[in-house]
Amino acid sequence: MTTGASIVTIGDEILIGQIVDTNSSMISRRLGGIGVKTLDMISIPDDREQIISRLSEELARSSVVISTGGLGPTKDDITKDALASLFGSTAYVRHEGQEEEVRRILHSRGLDALEVNLAQADVPAGCEVIVNHMGTAPIMVFRFPEERFGHPATLYAMPGVPYETEAALDAVMEDIRTHFPTENICHRNVMVYGLAESALAKLIAPWEEALPAGMHLAYLPNTLTGVRLRLSVYSGEKDKAEADMDTEIAKLQPILGDRIYSLREEPLEAVVGRLLKERSATLSVAESCTGGEIAHLVTTVPGASEYFLGSVTSYSPEVKKKVLVVSEKIIEQKGIVSSEVAASMAEGVRALTGSDFSVATTGWADAYGDSHEPAGTVWVGVSGEAGTETERFNYKGDRKRNIERFSASALDFLRRYIIKHSNN
Amino acid sequence: MTTGASIVTIGDEILIGQIVDTNSSMISRRLGGIGVKTLDMISIPDDREQIISRLSEELARSSVVISTGGLGPTKDDITKDALASLFGSTAYVRHEGQEEEVRRILHSRGLDALEVNLAQADVPAGCEVIVNHMGTAPIMVFRFPEERFGHPATLYAMPGVPYETEAALDAVMEDIRTHFPTENICHRNVMVYGLAESALAKLIAPWEEALPAGMHLAYLPNTLTGVRLRLSVYSGEKDKAEADMDTEIAKLQPILGDRIYSLREEPLEAVVGRLLKERSATLSVAESCTGGEIAHLVTTVPGASEYFLGSVTSYSPEVKKKVLVVSEKIIEQKGIVSSEVAASMAEGVRALTGSDFSVATTGWADAYGDSHEPAGTVWVGVSGEAGTETERFNYKGDRKRNIERFSASALDFLRRYIIKHSNN
Repeated sequence: MTTGASIVTIGDEILIGQIVDTNSSMISRRLGGIGVKTLDMISIPDDREQIISRLSEELARSSVVISTGGLGPTKDDITKDALASLFGSTAYVRHEGQEEEVRRILHSRGLDALEVNLAQADVPAGCEVIVNHMGTAPIMVFRFPEERFGHPATLYAMPGVPYETEAALDAVMEDIRTHFPTENICHRNVMVYGLAESALAKLIAPWEEALPAGMHLAYLPNTLTGVRLRLSVYSGEKDKAEADMDTEIAKLQPILGDRIYSLREEPLEAVVGRLLKERSATLSVAESCTGGEIAHLVTTVPGASEYFLGSVTSYSPEVKKKVLVVSEKIIEQKGIVSSEVAASMAEGVRALTGSDFSVATTGWADAYGDSHEPAGTVWVGVSGEAGTETERFNYKGDRKRNIERFSASALDFLRRYIIKHSNN
Repeated sequence: MTTGASIVTIGDEILIGQIVDTNSSMISRRLGGIGVKTLDMISIPDDREQIISRLSEELARSSVVISTGGLGPTKDDITKDALASLFGSTAYVRHEGQEEEVRRILHSRGLDALEVNLAQADVPAGCEVIVNHMGTAPIMVFRFPEERFGHPATLYAMPGVPYETEAALDAVMEDIRTHFPTENICHRNVMVYGLAESALAKLIAPWEEALPAGMHLAYLPNTLTGVRLRLSVYSGEKDKAEADMDTEIAKLQPILGDRIYSLREEPLEAVVGRLLKERSATLSVAESCTGGEIAHLVTTVPGASEYFLGSVTSYSPEVKKKVLVVSEKIIEQKGIVSSEVAASMAEGVRALTGSDFSVATTGWADAYGDSHEPAGTVWVGVSGEAGTETERFNYKGDRKRNIERFSASALDFLRRYIIKHSNN
């Protein structure tokens, strides 16, 4: 039987939208890794009655409840009191191990530990403690007997500071594995670019319908990364589950061909980077409407300096002419957004930097175009030893989304160019 | 009486931690703006029974329930059936306005509308529709009579794609204002750059403590935009509230001086753009470690083509030397991350493009440095008619956050340079 978990975030700052809750997704990913299924996540205010009643509901729902937030030296002790009341503790006990950590942490910051700090190590009598080495508030573990909620249930109350939460999760997961049945959940990702979600769904419908029972498919679309297809199997037999998913992915590959850019969860710029590294090849970029976004994406990949030489963003026609040596005549005859200008920019930046490959964009990201091309159009040029090629894309979106789609389309076109000319 | 709201996120992808839920905080901020208090947020799976039972619980708790997700053209969507059942609809009705939008959106992408797409415009009989102009799934409005949940309650079921959610929120807030008691909350924003949250809090503590009763201050820090100070007054007397906040902001200005870059909620690149437009001046950018992020930020501002000529990202020393004419000797003697290289890059790109102003960065974004400068250091150079100036910044963060902070620091230094040399 699968263990179910609930994740509870305590704090007004989440509810008024000041802070985006990133802890919950971090925790659920870790739970998934040990086969514990997250049944729900809730965010509640710093309110004693709410904390007690909502935690009780979640403990009745799930064997494992992990709460974050509501603990710390600047908070009122609302949460800790609520937890004591929920657990039926009438006294606090100082935890020596955590008290030592409070002194050590404050000392390392050049501060003396005041009583308000040491009181962080006080916990409701009867709870267990996982020492927090990154902060002053301990992780409190409340084990409720079966008769309380109809099943054995454990509440892990963690502080809300993300790096403290993250650092303590190893110990929490270990505790869950010790006390509850766990299993493996297996995932496989297929990254697809160049097909809208609905078109993709139609194309792979026969394959999807023939998936074996117990294998689940999800579509996860994103402007910059296309559609991520995620296959999941909940199974105790990890090897079989993985082999089964590999079999299904092997059937998918001939249907989607080079629309699949990776079988790992990674963006286009990481794949392009790997292709370049494998070939010891270098890259340069010439941008116009994308305004630096392609270079930015390329350089977010650690180690990009191994292959990325540099880029020119030629926002004005003068920079296109002067730096990238695009001819005045081509711009006049074909328009600034044209196959010819994209090709010339790609060739210009490749000559300027001496790179093996280059990619260039020229387009209208805003809701206007010209007599040559409508708004939302981008021409992408890619240049390399095998010659210069161009491709046209058209999108309907606002400025920001068009810039993102143009950039992703350029990276994908570059990716396909590199692969095509390697297989010859 | 204040109206209470619950926000419900539907989707396995949130629960398994593959996606961080950013919709909920966006929605709660908008609700706060019309005086509606968010009582809780929950995330639940794509499960018919769960959707029905949890939405019922939230409708019993709050007059306004806003759900996102679980709607879309692919098959893993069961939300609509659950909503029909919850509302007691036994039939679907195709909404003509949304159907038209589906055709328009697909046509604009060069696609024919398939039946699977048109079916997106089918809604449970009896619900009202707010047309989604950014996507194919409509916003469904379910109004439940008082006897159902003990109070009049409305459920707004929105698609989960963040830009679609965002675009439809104006209409949803307007509908809430029409049907439920709301109040005015007046806000004023003070955008501050160059002070950490704790240092800022200390500096303005006397001013903050003297704020009149009923005026609330929030600190909203962000890597790219610094700290946004938000003053709020809940009040029916809008004119008085706004005048009171103006008085307090006037007292704050001499304390913070040019650390304040705007009294509107806007990023540094928008302020820089306005300063340039006011002077009919042009800008070019030379980047290294920031890899295109500054140019990208500058060009996200609509109308940037009026002042932005272009940029060079010189990731390799060779591009620095060849394109930006940085001398080999300076790089050898002072190091690639140095005041001299930053100055030379700024002068180089200004000469190349003929711009009035330029800004350049050279730094170590990754967790390594060299003998000259440690990791997390950036040198920023700004060049203009008044000469070339440089400034050094040091941050502790990962690659991504350092790139963002370096870029924001560069834009802020440019902003201060333009202002300083205009007042002389």
